[in-house]
Formats: sequence, C-alpha cells, structure tokens
Amino acid sequence: MIKHLRSAADLDAATATLILDTAAEMAALAGREVKKLPTLRGRTVVNLFYEDSTRTRISFEAAAKRLSADVINFSAKGSSVSKGESLKDTALTLQAMGADAVVIRHSASGAPHRLASWVDGSVINAGDGTHEHPTQALLDAYTMRSRLGRLDGLKVAIVGDVLHSRVARSNVLLLTTLGAEITLVGPPTLIPVDIAAALSPTELAGSASLRGDRLVTGEKALGLPASANPADDGKPSAFSPAAITKVSYDLDSVLPVMDVVMMLRVQTERMQDSYFPSAREYSRRYGLDVARMRKLPEHAIVMHPGPMNRGMEIAPEVADSSRSTIVEQVANGVSARMAVLYLLLGGKA
Amino acid sequence: MIKHLRSAADLDAATATLILDTAAEMAALAGREVKKLPTLRGRTVVNLFYEDSTRTRISFEAAAKRLSADVINFSAKGSSVSKGESLKDTALTLQAMGADAVVIRHSASGAPHRLASWVDGSVINAGDGTHEHPTQALLDAYTMRSRLGRLDGLKVAIVGDVLHSRVARSNVLLLTTLGAEITLVGPPTLIPVDIAAALSPTELAGSASLRGDRLVTGEKALGLPASANPADDGKPSAFSPAAITKVSYDLDSVLPVMDVVMMLRVQTERMQDSYFPSAREYSRRYGLDVARMRKLPEHAIVMHPGPMNRGMEIAPEVADSSRSTIVEQVANGVSARMAVLYLLLGGKA
Amino acid sequence: MIKHLRSAADLDAATATLILDTAAEMAALAGREVKKLPTLRGRTVVNLFYEDSTRTRISFEAAAKRLSADVINFSAKGSSVSKGESLKDTALTLQAMGADAVVIRHSASGAPHRLASWVDGSVINAGDGTHEHPTQALLDAYTMRSRLGRLDGLKVAIVGDVLHSRVARSNVLLLTTLGAEITLVGPPTLIPVDIAAALSPTELAGSASLRGDRLVTGEKALGLPASANPADDGKPSAFSPAAITKVSYDLDSVLPVMDVVMMLRVQTERMQDSYFPSAREYSRRYGLDVARMRKLPEHAIVMHPGPMNRGMEIAPEVADSSRSTIVEQVANGVSARMAVLYLLLGGKA
Repeated sequence: MIKHLRSAADLDAATATLILDTAAEMAALAGREVKKLPTLRGRTVVNLFYEDSTRTRISFEAAAKRLSADVINFSAKGSSVSKGESLKDTALTLQAMGADAVVIRHSASGAPHRLASWVDGSVINAGDGTHEHPTQALLDAYTMRSRLGRLDGLKVAIVGDVLHSRVARSNVLLLTTLGAEITLVGPPTLIPVDIAAALSPTELAGSASLRGDRLVTGEKALGLPASANPADDGKPSAFSPAAITKVSYDLDSVLPVMDVVMMLRVQTERMQDSYFPSAREYSRRYGLDVARMRKLPEHAIVMHPGPMNRGMEIAPEVADSSRSTIVEQVANGVSARMAVLYLLLGGKA
Repeated sequence: MIKHLRSAADLDAATATLILDTAAEMAALAGREVKKLPTLRGRTVVNLFYEDSTRTRISFEAAAKRLSADVINFSAKGSSVSKGESLKDTALTLQAMGADAVVIRHSASGAPHRLASWVDGSVINAGDGTHEHPTQALLDAYTMRSRLGRLDGLKVAIVGDVLHSRVARSNVLLLTTLGAEITLVGPPTLIPVDIAAALSPTELAGSASLRGDRLVTGEKALGLPASANPADDGKPSAFSPAAITKVSYDLDSVLPVMDVVMMLRVQTERMQDSYFPSAREYSRRYGLDVARMRKLPEHAIVMHPGPMNRGMEIAPEVADSSRSTIVEQVANGVSARMAVLYLLLGGKA
Repeated sequence: MIKHLRSAADLDAATATLILDTAAEMAALAGREVKKLPTLRGRTVVNLFYEDSTRTRISFEAAAKRLSADVINFSAKGSSVSKGESLKDTALTLQAMGADAVVIRHSASGAPHRLASWVDGSVINAGDGTHEHPTQALLDAYTMRSRLGRLDGLKVAIVGDVLHSRVARSNVLLLTTLGAEITLVGPPTLIPVDIAAALSPTELAGSASLRGDRLVTGEKALGLPASANPADDGKPSAFSPAAITKVSYDLDSVLPVMDVVMMLRVQTERMQDSYFPSAREYSRRYGLDVARMRKLPEHAIVMHPGPMNRGMEIAPEVADSSRSTIVEQVANGVSARMAVLYLLLGGKA
C-alpha cells in the first residue's frame, strides 16, 4: 500500500480499485447499529486546515472517528502560523506530537508533497490550491461505479472552470487510470491549452505553468519541485491522459453520448477575472438546466462536488432530480475517506 | 417517543415527565467514578451552530460525549454557508454524512422545523431566533422540580424582555403543560400584547406576528409555515396558556406569592430599541436586588439562564445567594440534554 | 499530590521528580501499537483558551485523549465572554458542567490562581500573561534530563526577553528547585533588575512590579492578590533563586561553560518597545548562529520553546542541528502533560 495520498497520480489502477472495494465495505457499516470499527484506536489523525472547508473537514473527521481514531482539528487561523511559523515547523510539531496521519488543506499547490517530506506519518491531500483533491476523485469514482456498475469505458464530461479546478484535475488523473474517457467542457479561457502538460504526473504543476502566477497562491516561496511527484521516476509515463481526454466548448453537443456529467462549482469570486464570461452568459452556455439534462441518455447521472450555486452552474430541479448523485457523493465521501485512512494507516483489507 | 425536539410544544405532559425522570437518572451518573454510558456508541451528534453560543454548545457536547456518541462541531462561520450554501444543502450534507442527531442554533425562528423536514436524524432546537429554546425549558423545569419537589401548581414569574425571549416562550409552553402557573413581568413594551396568540402552538410564530419584522432575522426568505408545528393537527388545542398565564408590569407586587422568579437576560444590544426604558430605569424597576429578593417567600428560588449581566437584571449578591439556582441550572443542563439525546435516539429509559 | 498546577512554584523537588518520572512512563507508551491508557475514561478536560495558542492546545488535547479523557475546547472568542461574562461566571459554568480539569490560557497574569478558587476540579496553567507556563518548564526539564542524564548542577543559560517571558520565569523556578544553575542572558532592558523579587514565589507578580502596567494585560481589574500563591504561607522561603541565578549581558562569554542554552522567542510585536534594540542589533548580539553554537561544550544542547523566528533569535542551521532538542521538546510536551493530567486527576503512578 502507498503511504501518502498527495495526488490521484499516487494511485495505480490496482491500488485505486482496492480503495474503492474497501470503501464499499465501509459503506456497509453505515447500516449497522454500531457504526464504528476499532481499527484505528489509539491512532491520531490531525486535520491541518489552512483554508476553511467545513464540509471536507467534517467528512474526514467523521471517517476517522468511525474508525475509532482520535481526531485533532488544527485550523491555521489564529495559530502560530499567523505568527509566521513555517509549514515545516508546523509539520515537525505535528510529527513530534505523534500524528499518525495529517490531512492537509492548503492554498498552495504542492503543500502536501512538502509536508510528506517532513513527517513520518501519512499525508492525505484534502485540497491544495488549484492542484488536486484526490479523495474527491475517489468518492466520485466510487459514486459512478456504484450507480453505473463500472468505470472502464465510461464517458464522463467535466464541465466548467477546469483550469482552476483541483476536483477536475484529480478526477481526470484517477478516472483515466481506471479506464474512463474524459471530455473537458467549458469556455476556451477556462480549459488548459496543453492538457497533456497540465495533467501528466510529471508536470503536476502544469496549469500553473499556463498561468504562472497561479502556482503558489497562499504561501510565498513554498514552491513545488519539478519532480515533487514520487511517481516521476524518469521513465516515460504509461499514463497519457492527453490521448484519452477530449475538449469541447459546446456542452449541448456532448451531452447525448455521456454516461456522467460532472458540473464544477463556479468560484463566484473568480467571475471578475477576464477569462470568465458574465455570470448570465456562463450560466446560459454551461449551466445544466432541465432542458439540457433531457439531452443526456436515460441512464446518465449528474454529479457536483458541492457546495452548489443553485441557478448558476446547476438548476435546482436538476440538483434535486433522481439523476443527481449529489447527496450520495457526500455519503460516499465518508466511506472513501474511511477506506483511505484504513489502508494508509496499515489496516488490512 | 417523539423524534424531534423543535419546540416545547412537541412535549405533552407524559413525554416531558419522562425526560425529567430520565434526566434525574443521568444526574446520578455524575457521582460515579466513570461518568460515561455506552448507550450512543457509534452514533454521531452534529452541533450545527449558526450563532455563537459556547455555553450551549459545550453543554450538548458534554452530554453527547457522556453517552459515548461521536460529536462533530460545525460552526457556520467560515463554512460553505459563508459561500452562500443554503440551510437545505447543509442539511442534506449532514444527512448524507450519517448524522443521527443535529443540534441546531440559528438566528431564524423556525429553522429547526425546516431542518427536520430534510434530514432523517433527530433535530434538536438549541435556540432559534426569538422563538424557542426547549432544552433550556427542560433544564429549568428539572431545576424547579428538584428544588421544590413538584411543578404542578407552582407559581413562576418570568421577568424581563419576554417579547424577544426564546427562553420565556419555551418555559411558558413547557411549564403550563406541566401545571405551573406563569406570570409574565416586564415593561408593557416588552410583553406580547396577545399572549394567547404569541404562545399557542398553533401560532408558534406569534410574537413575530406582533412585530412582523422579527420572524426571520438571520436568513432571508426562510419563512416559517403557518403550520410548521406537527402538533398543529387542526383540532382545537387542549393547551391554552392564556387561561393560565398572567401579566404584570409591577415586579414588587408579584414577588410575595411566587415560588420561582426567573430573571431573563437583558440583551444590552437591544437597549437602544425604543420599547426599552433606559438601562438605569430598567434595572431600578425590573432588576432583582437584595431588597426585592427579601419580598419572596422563604422557600422561593431565583433562576437565570445565563450569562448574567450582574448589576443589571440581577444583583451580584442575589446571583450568589443560596436561593439562586444559576449554577445548578448549568449542571442540570447537561443532564437534561443527555436525557433528550438518549430518548430521541432510541435509548430505553 | 498537588491539586492544581498554577505555577512552577507549586512543585517541590519530590513532586517535580515524580512528574518527570511519570512522563518517562508516558513516553514509553508512544512506542506501543495502541497509544492509549484507559486511566481518565469518563473524565472531562476543558481547554479554556482566552488567547490563541494552537500548539499548546493540541498538545494538551493529545495528552488528554491518550489518557481516554473527553476533551472540550472552549475558545473565548465568540463565546459569552465576548458578551461580557466574567471569568468567575465562566468558571462556575465549567464547574457545573463537571469539568475534572480546566487547562487555562489567559492574557492576565494570575488568572489560573483566581480560577482555582472557583472550581472544584484541577486547574492547570497553560500560560498566563507574562507570568508563568509551568508545563513548558516541565517538558524542558524532562528534555534536559533525558538528553544529559541529570538536572542537579546543570548550567543553563536562558537567552532573550527574560523580562516578559513566562517560559523563562517557570523554568527558573522549576530548574532551581531541581538543582540547576541558571544564567539569564539578554540586553539589560530585558532582564528584571531585581531577580529575587521577580522570581520569588512570594512575589510572583514581581516582573509586573518592575513594569507596573504589565501585570494585567487582558482583563481589567482581575488583579492578582499579593499572596495569590498558596505556597506563600508567610514562612521565609527555602527557595531563593537570586542566590543561584546569575545575569549576563554577554552571550559569547557564557556559552563555553553551559550545558544547556535555551533561546527565548522574540515577540516581534514587542520590537517597537523602547527597551528593545533593533531587530538586526538584537540578532547580532543575542541570536544563536553557527559560530556561536561552536563555542558551546561538545555535549551541550540548544533548546527553544517554539514557534521559532528562524534567522532572528536562532539560525536555521542551529535549529536543525543535532544539538537542537526543539522537536523532542514538542514530543516531550505531550508526555509531560499526560503525566500532569494523570497525577493531578488522581491516577496512581
């Protein structure tokens, strides 16, 4: 088993499948009277959150507690971080306190890779800048597999601000590993111009190279080493998402052949940016309303990582329809994170 | 057993008495070496607090932990709520994460009723706007019963800003159900003009109808359905608080016949409002000082929900006197909340 | 065993040694598969933090959880404290909720002494103003003893802003009790002019008497009684740190004979104060760089309570050298706090 989950690129097909299978076993727990497993009793999981994200934090917290781990929430706000402590010194502190796993959310892409070089425990990326959010990809893959029975050959449209989306990036990496075929949909300004460069694990900071100022948003000079990714062993990558990832600027034309349409959240604070059309125009061209939903094949599902902007990227009727997996995704998030904690911390499947 | 505790009107006399009896058993735990019961092991209680209230939150947290539940604190500040997520989507998230109970504090009257329509778990109202705070009423009733031996026929004065007090409203509903006789005391501007309308469970948003702008203070357009209360089954209510609730504008005249005087907290931020006399005048006429306390019968007790404004609505010597139950109320709060969690989540008494 | 740990002066040599010995047993736990002891199951430890200090809070939280206690975090921000509740009423609330121990961090020197007079549970000082931080001294003593084999006769330099350092004050009190010999090093403006007065337990607010406005920084009129310290029984103190504490303004001259050099954190916000030289001048004269570190005897260790200002009071190469115990100190902090909680709450050693 891998030790860290910094990127969806840390997962080969066998490992990813083991996690999804384990998540299914964890989900079965939810039906029992006592929903806890004693597996991680005496282990400490630290939620190290440099950005607010209550949803993700409580999902990890619920997952860890169901495995009987002790959970310590460390919000960087009001901590010594605000007194200028470096990520390294914070890492050494958590390490010394005996953290068995550190779940990190950080505004700087690459922060989890740095952290993993400083601590003995497992590092789990809960979102780093515009870079990755691998447990989101796992829960999404789990949701698709449980709704549609398979991942191999599945046609998945990812729609919206792909350029800045860690959800999109992790999903493309994981889903192509598992055999799905991705189509990225959005305005040309919000799709990476060089998808292969943006998504290859050997260039995991690719989107930042497109927009140089995007790489490090929260912490100056953190940087990201050219070969931050341990999968980058110099050998030519077997994984070539460019070959299996398509791009479209026209949502209506791709819907009829999709098994899955995954709507990305619009960061409304980014609406000011020049590469964004107006909110009205965006919604008209890339929002999923009822009329558009009808163009999907009957079996197709609609996904969204939440929180939604109802009426912007997704219509309320679509969000609440039977095709929508949005609530299931949240429940599956706890199961997927239980599986990751369980396997990374040495549980046997 | 009821499933939710949204309002004190959810409780008939038998149910309320069962909760008080169970609270007494829970209180007995506090004397033991190990103060925990395994009853709720594997259950998850979420504290969903849209308003700061450390005292209430830690009371529920302590109660849930003594029953061995896992507790997840969800403060709306800095959460996706601040990104505009609706209460409904937050509810669906907590639901999907498997919350067995959601303890909600919200500035909007009626929020717990809405929440209960969206989640499978139990909803417990920990204070909604100016509307209700039913566990406060339970701990108050428990305190009266354990100090004075009974509730039936007890004469209770509730003193202060009754109009805006969720503590007052829940206490009137619960205590009249249990046979106590209430006298509301305060300046005319701070007493509902139509008490029956204000307090009947079929009009539980009554005080807001008196002051139309008060109903929804925190969340626009949340609204409160005319029949939000499930007890409102259209039958004429057996419960008619107006018949047994009196009003007085003169504190001194009512004290000599009271068994209990419950001082409400003055919301100093409301002192600006036009229906409020000056702080000095308020304190002179409605504050409980030593001279006034002496007018009470010897056995009478003095209550306050805390936190107090010492020197405003209550003199320090009164707060610290042997008649005062203020510290007991806090301890009883943990027992009463343990009883509510225990019974609502299916423990057997 | 003592009941409270408000000051390092609460500890005589036998008690301090018992805590250090117990901490060693607790540290041995860290190597086990399950790092938990059931000792404090059913006990409640409240972290009552009026100042942000994530590091100290999570150290206590981890310690309490490893002993199976329930932990409730009470941050004064956004609590009823911000509605003007007094420390006394907060204390009575925690007391009533059944807190077995209250760990308090407060900006007012003496707050833990006050708190101990209001609650039945144990009070542990986690830092009060510029006054004391006794568990920091315990973890520092533990670190010295485990690195150097003894405390008696050890030569320890404490370097920096001694005048305002609760870490320095607690260390001087504890280490002299245990037989070490202290040298205080810093600019004359940052060393108390009357060390005996500043450090004697009968004058525990001594540094404040030097700078009268320093005593109470966070809460007006909290005050500190002249004999706040229970060790102050009127008898002449057997403990006379002045006799065994030296002062030097020249770091270079003292280094060659030291066993331990403890660098204090520079509070950069204090750099504006008139008794502080410029940052550059301070660092040049009192910062520990590689050249200075070489002046230490070969066996000597370098300590820092963290968080560090790398490049200000300590050079990065020094902080990361093998002489540095900075990371060990953090780990030892959890063990020392486990020992304190265990012994104060009635565990048998």
